[in-house]
Amino acid sequence: MAKKTQKDFLNPKELIKHIDIKKYSQAVSMVEDFSNMAYSSRDLARASKIYNMMLADKGCAVVLCLAGSLISAGLKKIVVDLLENNMIDAIVSTGANIVDQDFFEALGYKHYKGDQHNADDNLLRDLHIDRIYDTYINEDELKVCDETVHKILNTLEPRPYSSREIIWEMGKWLEAKKKGKDSIIYTAYKKGVPIFVPAFADCSAGFGFVAHQTERPTSHVTLDGAKDFLELTKIKINAKETGLLMFAGGVPKNFVQDTVVAAEILGQDSPMHKYAVQVTVADERDGALSGSTLKEASSWGKVSTALEQMVYAECTLAVPLITAYAYHKKAWKSRK
Amino acid sequence: MAKKTQKDFLNPKELIKHIDIKKYSQAVSMVEDFSNMAYSSRDLARASKIYNMMLADKGCAVVLCLAGSLISAGLKKIVVDLLENNMIDAIVSTGANIVDQDFFEALGYKHYKGDQHNADDNLLRDLHIDRIYDTYINEDELKVCDETVHKILNTLEPRPYSSREIIWEMGKWLEAKKKGKDSIIYTAYKKGVPIFVPAFADCSAGFGFVAHQTERPTSHVTLDGAKDFLELTKIKINAKETGLLMFAGGVPKNFVQDTVVAAEILGQDSPMHKYAVQVTVADERDGALSGSTLKEASSWGKVSTALEQMVYAECTLAVPLITAYAYHKKAWKSRK
Amino acid sequence: MAKKTQKDFLNPKELIKHIDIKKYSQAVSMVEDFSNMAYSSRDLARASKIYNMMLADKGCAVVLCLAGSLISAGLKKIVVDLLENNMIDAIVSTGANIVDQDFFEALGYKHYKGDQHNADDNLLRDLHIDRIYDTYINEDELKVCDETVHKILNTLEPRPYSSREIIWEMGKWLEAKKKGKDSIIYTAYKKGVPIFVPAFADCSAGFGFVAHQTERPTSHVTLDGAKDFLELTKIKINAKETGLLMFAGGVPKNFVQDTVVAAEILGQDSPMHKYAVQVTVADERDGALSGSTLKEASSWGKVSTALEQMVYAECTLAVPLITAYAYHKKAWKSRK
Amino acid sequence: MAKKTQKDFLNPKELIKHIDIKKYSQAVSMVEDFSNMAYSSRDLARASKIYNMMLADKGCAVVLCLAGSLISAGLKKIVVDLLENNMIDAIVSTGANIVDQDFFEALGYKHYKGDQHNADDNLLRDLHIDRIYDTYINEDELKVCDETVHKILNTLEPRPYSSREIIWEMGKWLEAKKKGKDSIIYTAYKKGVPIFVPAFADCSAGFGFVAHQTERPTSHVTLDGAKDFLELTKIKINAKETGLLMFAGGVPKNFVQDTVVAAEILGQDSPMHKYAVQVTVADERDGALSGSTLKEASSWGKVSTALEQMVYAECTLAVPLITAYAYHKKAWKSRK
Ligand SMILES: NC(=O)c1ccc[n+]([C@@H]2O[C@H](COP(=O)([O-])OP(=O)(O)OC[C@H]3O[C@@H](n4cnc5c(N)ncnc54)[C@H](O)[C@@H]3O)[C@@H](O)[C@H]2O)c1
Ligand SMILES: NC(=O)c1ccc[n+]([C@@H]2O[C@H](COP(=O)([O-])OP(=O)(O)OC[C@H]3O[C@@H](n4cnc5c(N)ncnc54)[C@H](O)[C@@H]3O)[C@@H](O)[C@H]2O)c1
Repeated sequence: MAKKTQKDFLNPKELIKHIDIKKYSQAVSMVEDFSNMAYSSRDLARASKIYNMMLADKGCAVVLCLAGSLISAGLKKIVVDLLENNMIDAIVSTGANIVDQDFFEALGYKHYKGDQHNADDNLLRDLHIDRIYDTYINEDELKVCDETVHKILNTLEPRPYSSREIIWEMGKWLEAKKKGKDSIIYTAYKKGVPIFVPAFADCSAGFGFVAHQTERPTSHVTLDGAKDFLELTKIKINAKETGLLMFAGGVPKNFVQDTVVAAEILGQDSPMHKYAVQVTVADERDGALSGSTLKEASSWGKVSTALEQMVYAECTLAVPLITAYAYHKKAWKSRK
Repeated sequence: MAKKTQKDFLNPKELIKHIDIKKYSQAVSMVEDFSNMAYSSRDLARASKIYNMMLADKGCAVVLCLAGSLISAGLKKIVVDLLENNMIDAIVSTGANIVDQDFFEALGYKHYKGDQHNADDNLLRDLHIDRIYDTYINEDELKVCDETVHKILNTLEPRPYSSREIIWEMGKWLEAKKKGKDSIIYTAYKKGVPIFVPAFADCSAGFGFVAHQTERPTSHVTLDGAKDFLELTKIKINAKETGLLMFAGGVPKNFVQDTVVAAEILGQDSPMHKYAVQVTVADERDGALSGSTLKEASSWGKVSTALEQMVYAECTLAVPLITAYAYHKKAWKSRK
Repeated sequence: MAKKTQKDFLNPKELIKHIDIKKYSQAVSMVEDFSNMAYSSRDLARASKIYNMMLADKGCAVVLCLAGSLISAGLKKIVVDLLENNMIDAIVSTGANIVDQDFFEALGYKHYKGDQHNADDNLLRDLHIDRIYDTYINEDELKVCDETVHKILNTLEPRPYSSREIIWEMGKWLEAKKKGKDSIIYTAYKKGVPIFVPAFADCSAGFGFVAHQTERPTSHVTLDGAKDFLELTKIKINAKETGLLMFAGGVPKNFVQDTVVAAEILGQDSPMHKYAVQVTVADERDGALSGSTLKEASSWGKVSTALEQMVYAECTLAVPLITAYAYHKKAWKSRK
Repeated sequence: MAKKTQKDFLNPKELIKHIDIKKYSQAVSMVEDFSNMAYSSRDLARASKIYNMMLADKGCAVVLCLAGSLISAGLKKIVVDLLENNMIDAIVSTGANIVDQDFFEALGYKHYKGDQHNADDNLLRDLHIDRIYDTYINEDELKVCDETVHKILNTLEPRPYSSREIIWEMGKWLEAKKKGKDSIIYTAYKKGVPIFVPAFADCSAGFGFVAHQTERPTSHVTLDGAKDFLELTKIKINAKETGLLMFAGGVPKNFVQDTVVAAEILGQDSPMHKYAVQVTVADERDGALSGSTLKEASSWGKVSTALEQMVYAECTLAVPLITAYAYHKKAWKSRK
């Protein structure tokens, strides 16, 4: 048996492609039908309708939260379409989605379909292939991604930055390099939608930072997580109402919820998030934040209980239907 | 019906208490028995033995990772006992565990047993009671916790800090105030064990930061997440071998795994984590980091596959047995 | 506050309605798009295609397995449409789906949307309302269902019956009474598709049996579970190939898988099930049958590994897409 | 590489062994500590105490329900010890636990530790090894088990039997053959504790039945599932109070719950099950029976809500602690 090479696993015919919800007008009727069924389908229908209410509510700013590895999974175009059509006003995400996956693809690289059942992870390592469940990544390409962040950091004036500022710089860089027209970072940059990554060091960007700071030990860019929090809180304060559209959970969910409390600390009387929707497979029994119910968040004064809905489902199944419903219902047409 | 007050929910007879593994010598034999059974019990037994191997391996630095809300759940004393007995060499955690829960208790406050089934979260909010699944917190006390961080930040020289540095300051503050002798922060401070919180703004500390930075807009403490990453990477580089003891998942799991890659970027040839154990209820099918297998981490060059074990269980059930086993096996006696 | 009555919960405007997949031709393209994504969406796409392969394979008999409470959840019409269009050749189910839910609706009763979050189950009991998660049932109507089975049994010649024979009698009864034209039992009766319920006493039918046998202690209908097994095994033996379309898991999954082994015991060389698809939220870690992988079933010689796919999803979300895909791909047009 | 044989997988040094709870007196104190913690540990503590209350309640009959594959997983001795010490009064189980696993071991065969990660299920099939997640079974031995049931059936007078009667015959057979002193079937036989398997054809016994009935087409033993239901209902009626100790869920859980309704049909006023405890990893969101809450069962009039507790945990972890607690608390000493 010939020794396997990278090419045996990274097959250009087996690329991950991003679903286009604009094609699925029947989602409206399907979601209506789901609202007369039971269990997760009915929950999904209610979540879809709540998202649509956010869009129909003139004073409402919509914050999209992303965790997990959703962009590598084929959900990038959905986020881009939401941006293009004014269906979200801010993004809070993990670094994996924004840097390792979206910026990575903006550089021209791709994700490949992989095999979770028969993966020999030691062999993959030897071949410089990284695995995310059923998806493969060319590790050498990912290093270019780290290195690109490193280079961008090197061009910046040394001072503390929020992740939002750095991601904005990445958008600017993409524009200058004429890259990534179909990326989240670039589209958000163009549309003026801020992107926050509260644990920004915990991704490909972190490697860029480590290189940058080690190279320039005395004067360098620093990453001020507190600044992110302050900036996001100000967005909360300036919005009349807010709605949360959360795909997965993790740090982004908590971060954006906490802005209600932070506003109070700043002496501002900001209302609880009026709408909240979360799609997750985490459950509440472990006491962790990802699976904690939105009702529980209400005890903390963060989320109003009236219009919240948890959907217990894996995002690649639920997100296309929820967003296609809202897209084809067209309430967003009257926004902005 | 008389109107309910805070006292009806925060019952001093219904406090959360922290389990003491030093009492449970029979855990050794029980875990041995588990190793001859099937499913999660056998996995738990193997994980316990791998943790014990880390302790028996002279050159091995053990990193404890904590996510979720484990300290409010009664696992604080276990962490303190691990610290006291040189059974861990660094901690990477979410902020909830370290600030909102450990530091909070160090200030003299308590967690209360609550009711997840019949909770009226709107009433709880009105009464200033925060709920974590089946646990209640006095929100007014939690605000004192935020405010205390704020005050500590005000005493620090304005510059970028890693979370580790700030938590060390919190330990020093506890010492000065003669508070929290039984806390993780204080014990770690005393033992010289560093604590990292990669998303440090995403907890009670974040509120302290928001207040601090708003009050002092031009010159203030900033929170450099990149510095944390660099510091933790240096610990990785300096250790001959490393073992990961992960309770829950989230950002801490990814953060510590990434240090292997960061070391490489620094031109250091640091081995993969030799041992790794994770207790979680997350599963791998959503493609997210928490539930990703340690074998998958091996494709990234982060964790060696030889001595890794996932335990699919809720931490309050599994952690007492795993740690009691290691404690009573006494391999740690020859450390340091 | 006025005392609540049944009417407050069983609202005729809040009926469960059954989704009609014939409307959703876009499912074909959506499932194709899912096949280029990751995680559950890609699994769902592969499962859909395998089901379509079963239908395209001339010699293949398709067995539908149902567990859980899927009919009360709005999936009845899907099963009826599969029957009408020759897309399944036998059904193996739990009693809940076939008797308590399908036969119940055939009698003219309905399921109502309920509330899983604020249900006061003691009050519901007092009001004769039974709850299945987020669905309500009129208990008095369910008793009519038990009683109807009782009456049908009373008309039968006393001897051992398979569940299939009794369900066939129920179909005949519906025809005679001109009831339930849109029911699974009636449609299967009309189309000559056998329905097996291996644990037939464990549902509304069991109550009918208890009444019947108590009333007629010496000479009565008995329920021969072994006969079911023998009959289903003969179906397996007579089919050139078999494919399993499993929604949920439980006893039906094991029962139909075991026919391969039973055939061998009867000295017949029957091949393993060639195709197998399962939608479930059970996972494999507990060692139970529902979540056991189809690869594991291969070690038992029951299912071929080549064309099997597990889909980890809640049925109300996944089943409409899988079946709509197969319906609109039209491979079934050339069957029978 | 030499071709692998059965011996490479069925290693006599890697046998599953059954845990002995009589050794673990510290479980009492550990469970008490758990009752002051949160999440699953606190739930487990409450469940343990409820089980102990059942034992302390003089008029209370305790029904043990078993689903999944728990006996092959090392929990057999626990059930035997519960039987020996009058800690249960009836058993309702799936066939896998009672026939394929307990009776199988009574014949002198063993279960082997296996490997869920690297299993090649096609190879296992070729080697006649059956896999249950991380456990291996010699398929040739399992066929002896089927065949033994067949032979026992051949000795019985042809008529309809409940599963209980047949299992009692299996106990008698074991006594005659001087086999299986440490088995559940034999111990239950000796102690006069009835065992019910509602879906008795759905296990190794089913193969025995298929062979028996095919061999003797006109006059044979039949399996009357309705008789089981009637017999169990009579036990319910004769007990002053009842308590359910449920390990896993499935058909046994529903079957025993339904006896309350069946009693009513028989015109007997039997109270709801007073105590109920369930250990499961199933969750309620799929609307299926296994994960349905015991509160939901209360809407059906089956289980009283006052003393019920779900424990979300895998049985091999939770069952040893719950039963060791009850054993060492000694309330059972005053029973019978
Ligand atoms: N370098 C990488 O490629 C990489 C990959 C993954 C994560 N990370 C980093 O790890 C950290 C934690 O990441 P995380 O967000 O994966 O943590 P996580 O696993 O804790 O996920 C957060 C929550 O979201 C839910 N979730 C995730 N994916 C889902 C899906 N597909 N469907 C439904 N629910 C889903 C999970 O169940 C979980 O409760 C982040 O800082 C991230 O940047 C890095
Ligand atoms: N009388 C009633 O109304 C009633 C209701 C439910 C069940 N029952 C009886 O209880 C017994 C066991 O029933 P069961 O089948 O509910 O057992 P179960 O809960 O063990 O379900 C079997 C498997 O199917 C999976 N599953 C069920 N519903 C699902 C869904 N919506 N999506 C994805 N996966 C799903 C479950 O996770 C489980 O693994 C049967 O005999 C049945 O007749 C009676």
